[in-house]
Amino acid sequence: MNNTNIVVRLNARPTGMPGREHFKICEEPLPDLQPEEIRVAISYISISPSLRMQMNARESYLPAVPIGGLLRARAVGEVVESRSSRFAKGDFVEGAFGPQSYYSGPVAGVMKIDPALAPIERYLGALGMSGLTAYFGLVHTCHPQAGQTLLVSAAAGSVGSIVGQIGKKLGCHVIGIAGGADKCAYVTNDLNYDACIDYRGEDVGQRLAELAPDGVDIFFDNVGGEILEATLANLAAGGMVSICGAISSYNDIDAICGPRNWLKLLERRATLKGFSVYDFQSDYSEALAILAGWIAGGAIKPAEHIEEGLERFGDVLPMLFHGSHRGKLILKI
Amino acid sequence: MNNTNIVVRLNARPTGMPGREHFKICEEPLPDLQPEEIRVAISYISISPSLRMQMNARESYLPAVPIGGLLRARAVGEVVESRSSRFAKGDFVEGAFGPQSYYSGPVAGVMKIDPALAPIERYLGALGMSGLTAYFGLVHTCHPQAGQTLLVSAAAGSVGSIVGQIGKKLGCHVIGIAGGADKCAYVTNDLNYDACIDYRGEDVGQRLAELAPDGVDIFFDNVGGEILEATLANLAAGGMVSICGAISSYNDIDAICGPRNWLKLLERRATLKGFSVYDFQSDYSEALAILAGWIAGGAIKPAEHIEEGLERFGDVLPMLFHGSHRGKLILKI
Repeated sequence: MNNTNIVVRLNARPTGMPGREHFKICEEPLPDLQPEEIRVAISYISISPSLRMQMNARESYLPAVPIGGLLRARAVGEVVESRSSRFAKGDFVEGAFGPQSYYSGPVAGVMKIDPALAPIERYLGALGMSGLTAYFGLVHTCHPQAGQTLLVSAAAGSVGSIVGQIGKKLGCHVIGIAGGADKCAYVTNDLNYDACIDYRGEDVGQRLAELAPDGVDIFFDNVGGEILEATLANLAAGGMVSICGAISSYNDIDAICGPRNWLKLLERRATLKGFSVYDFQSDYSEALAILAGWIAGGAIKPAEHIEEGLERFGDVLPMLFHGSHRGKLILKI
Repeated sequence: MNNTNIVVRLNARPTGMPGREHFKICEEPLPDLQPEEIRVAISYISISPSLRMQMNARESYLPAVPIGGLLRARAVGEVVESRSSRFAKGDFVEGAFGPQSYYSGPVAGVMKIDPALAPIERYLGALGMSGLTAYFGLVHTCHPQAGQTLLVSAAAGSVGSIVGQIGKKLGCHVIGIAGGADKCAYVTNDLNYDACIDYRGEDVGQRLAELAPDGVDIFFDNVGGEILEATLANLAAGGMVSICGAISSYNDIDAICGPRNWLKLLERRATLKGFSVYDFQSDYSEALAILAGWIAGGAIKPAEHIEEGLERFGDVLPMLFHGSHRGKLILKI
């Protein structure tokens, strides 16, 4: 451990796509630890859509980050110094440590992770917030039944890649939506989806009508926009749409229009429901045990896409929107 | 009974507001009854927003009505001739008889009503589809709890006037939205709402923030459009929006935009749910008994606005949108 912290601070608010020009890389001295604080040497940082939301001036379900502040990126690393009785030097931990090389602060929300059970970066993906989001957003929000048709957008992404595999495990007929033929092949071949629609090359509404002639029972949506509209037009009676995110709108949050055909919800007696994984905190450990069991049994294949270099944070973040990654996008320090 | 039926037939599809120019009044001979059919001398016809939907070429949850066809208006009347063992001459009945002086046809969906228990027009309102829609849309869809804040749009209308009174009966804090100070006074004074916002003269979002500082727990929406957006901005965490209708959109169904701030559903972990009273048919009689009990006990004050003259059907229908009526709009023949 040297005495310098490399910190990626928010330097400007983007109006569209985020990039390196919106961040400032600072070298700062490490602060002394206060009582009950820990210092973590960060190894991997989670790159997630919520980071883009935090760059906006307006508050969302999370407060906005001030200019000069630190995005609340989740990360994993090793405790190198501790003034907390909860953690000892040498423990591995996960928390909202932010894009920096060392976290020095309180232990609220910090979880211990076990490097013997899985590579530590997996605690940012299938065994972390992505897996928990997939689990609670599908199982506890949509209550899928065997035989139902489940549609998942951003099917090759961090959450979608897990949602579809859980759906298959529960006996659903699972259709994905992803961008490009290669990604679709990955979704069906590697992630075990029954089918995948290429939204770049195919008419989503028409393909849905073919692949789900009786309608979509459950739509786990990470995207919003036209894909949501195409699905509402193909929703089964009593259908359920779980809003996990709307990445198509995050770069232009003020200009969005709700789904033009939202009255399909009335026609189909359907439900559009937002959820947040943070509402299920008391059940995290139970869900992680279930996910770990499914991974061990082979039902869920975790997928991580790892980029390297903390100084590349501003270059890697927009990859979320360009969509070239597969599975959980992670930055290795 | 004479041998002539006066029938109001659809003559043209409106692009905006419906009016008498979209109907043709025909004098037609009464057909002979087929086996299992009845003839009903119609007394009162229900004027409801679904009639406007039926005038569009596109199918909704109900099929479109062809030009020259008959809107499926619900009505009450007396059986004057019967070839069905289910109904006898002299019975009073309710059904989708359409805007005409005599219904001659099958008995599917026809319900017997008791003129000794209530004036027969009430079976088109609080003891009919309006009451059932209010009951199932609130009680079975939103599961209101005592102490919750319930907001109702079109609060002075056929369904809204009952929803709020059920909400009060169940211990909710009930806020209405209606057009004009007179209507708002009616909603609070006659319908027992705790407060009412005049959407014509007041800023709905600002008034909601004042009247429901902790947010709206349940929104029973008959209107859609800007009122829905104002409510989404003031929704409590875990809030529930029950879509009963979207009368603001019915005259221009292709141009609508979904609520621009629909991602508030994600932020507030809220639910937007369409329902249809037709999904609860097996529970109609139980619900009607409950509603009748509440009316008898004074908890629900039924409200009917009665216009006269079958030939005025095309003039009375747009009153739904001009909003001058209070309670259930009914046409007396």
